[in-house]
Amino acid sequence: MPHEDPINPEGGVEWLRADGPQTDVVMSSRIRLARNLESFPFLTKATPDERQRIVAIAREQTLAAALADQMIWVDLRETPKLERNLLVERHLISKQHAKGDAPRAVAVSSPDERLAIMVNEEDHLRIQVMRSGLDLQEVFQQISEVDDKLEKRMDFAFSSRFGFLTACPTNVGTGIRVSVMLHLPGLKLSGELEKVRRAAKSMSLAVRGFYGEGSDAVGDFYQLSNQTTLGKTEEQILEEFEGKMLPKVIDYERHARKKLLAERRKLIEDRVHRALGTLRHARLLAANESLQLLGYLRLGVAAGLIKDVPLQTVNRLILLTQPAHLQRALQKELDQAKRRVERADLVRAQLAG
Amino acid sequence: MPHEDPINPEGGVEWLRADGPQTDVVMSSRIRLARNLESFPFLTKATPDERQRIVAIAREQTLAAALADQMIWVDLRETPKLERNLLVERHLISKQHAKGDAPRAVAVSSPDERLAIMVNEEDHLRIQVMRSGLDLQEVFQQISEVDDKLEKRMDFAFSSRFGFLTACPTNVGTGIRVSVMLHLPGLKLSGELEKVRRAAKSMSLAVRGFYGEGSDAVGDFYQLSNQTTLGKTEEQILEEFEGKMLPKVIDYERHARKKLLAERRKLIEDRVHRALGTLRHARLLAANESLQLLGYLRLGVAAGLIKDVPLQTVNRLILLTQPAHLQRALQKELDQAKRRVERADLVRAQLAG
Repeated sequence: MPHEDPINPEGGVEWLRADGPQTDVVMSSRIRLARNLESFPFLTKATPDERQRIVAIAREQTLAAALADQMIWVDLRETPKLERNLLVERHLISKQHAKGDAPRAVAVSSPDERLAIMVNEEDHLRIQVMRSGLDLQEVFQQISEVDDKLEKRMDFAFSSRFGFLTACPTNVGTGIRVSVMLHLPGLKLSGELEKVRRAAKSMSLAVRGFYGEGSDAVGDFYQLSNQTTLGKTEEQILEEFEGKMLPKVIDYERHARKKLLAERRKLIEDRVHRALGTLRHARLLAANESLQLLGYLRLGVAAGLIKDVPLQTVNRLILLTQPAHLQRALQKELDQAKRRVERADLVRAQLAG
Repeated sequence: MPHEDPINPEGGVEWLRADGPQTDVVMSSRIRLARNLESFPFLTKATPDERQRIVAIAREQTLAAALADQMIWVDLRETPKLERNLLVERHLISKQHAKGDAPRAVAVSSPDERLAIMVNEEDHLRIQVMRSGLDLQEVFQQISEVDDKLEKRMDFAFSSRFGFLTACPTNVGTGIRVSVMLHLPGLKLSGELEKVRRAAKSMSLAVRGFYGEGSDAVGDFYQLSNQTTLGKTEEQILEEFEGKMLPKVIDYERHARKKLLAERRKLIEDRVHRALGTLRHARLLAANESLQLLGYLRLGVAAGLIKDVPLQTVNRLILLTQPAHLQRALQKELDQAKRRVERADLVRAQLAG
């Protein structure tokens, strides 16, 4: 199947729709499962031919399993770099999955893009379900159904002692990774973020930037996720994550915002409105600055300081201002200088007062 | 005569009206004459009583001389500090004339404020005439008429060998100081300003900031003035100033702007529109930042990049955002933090899109 615009870059992804619970602090919820086919070695040891066969099996089974109304199959070897980067920006594949030329693919539910199954990333299959706001229970329910359907069609490597076997030991067991994308400008501005980082670390949670491992926390967006999956049930992991740490972080952030608005209101108003002013007037916008300004704008909208911009528009711009999306919208490759011009034009048009 | 709101702080001063020739680069033209009464010692040696008598004579004669439709007399000893600062911001008195408690005054033509006569600043009389844009000939004609009228009523210290005698030797001779307020963002942005500074110095011209001696060139506004007045006629000084150096500086600045707009257009557009965006959205504005942003805005308006803001509005804001004007408009003294809030509110209201 040739690659035929599987993803509509104009369409918003579900996880950025800005609805769902607690969306003032929680951008999105995600659960990922790592699964490996029993009859093949882990990818570190698989031959190109074996990799190719894994892709073929995964394609046949995921497309036949009725996992969603429509599943789109993207063979990443046949996909141009720009399109692969588009998938990274939509959080449908990882940065490392976009690279290299080994046989690999991703299956995506369309048009909502809530479900994505990376084939031959670090494990044979990495199944992820995302949604906007905080609702890990619903996400868990959906991914469990997907997992059940796939298990009926494929034999996954499983040890009665350890659970699911995975390429990386931290995923062994349930193979589950639970994560949320948080927006923490209050904690950042009040200087309390380090406290939260330390608390997260002590509970074996990882704090990462907007694009996961190794990426910076531009715009005060942070991914919070569990670190280990061994020796606990999926329900326990979910309960610990959603029941213990997360409500605290959300409370801390809301408290920090409230305090800032009570004690340094003018400063926050200034920051937020200046961000809107710059976004509405700039003629050149770098990606990082744009994300930072959109972060402040998001704070302003969530706090009710800015009333004429919907939260959804802010979230949508966070995606559409990314390099691959910009270039895709304009149907051409652009160097960094031209992207800055186009990014500013796009933002101005979308935020026109 | 008690002090009764002689100056209308809501009214624009003539020199900021943004009309007149070459107003894209030249904000205003000013000529100042230094005169001393023959029958009194210079102020460095005058007693308080003598100073008081100088004020009395100056008041009587300037008010009787029919120098303008209406002359307002401001006794600076009876004028509160805030009002004196207002006069400094309107360039009607110098910073040092606002200070101290010696007998001193200023006479101002109303409502245009083109003519101001400082009494007991460094000399007994310092007569100044200002106007918007570049028209030193007209300014010279007006100040000559004022000088003639005053000479008929008072004997000025004069030496047939040296000319008019003044407290500071650099003013001896004609006692004339010619100056223009220039807006040089093009030379600043292109890094050519130092060249102009050196050229000016080699021609015995002084380059100063927005508030004269010792003030910074915030917003890329510079005062250019002649340094010596001895051994030349007024006409020679004027001719040298207006005929030689000034056209060159104006040309350099226009050339720099043209080049920037040709070669780095997006960068300039970005700078200018960001300034407008910040001015239209900020909730806190410091005086210096505000002047800098208004400077960029002025460049944008002059270059035709911004069409919905009149140059006059920009000039007016340059004045109204100064601390004393802000406080006067609000009828109360404000600390710096409150001034930042009020300044931002004022600017936003005046620049509402």
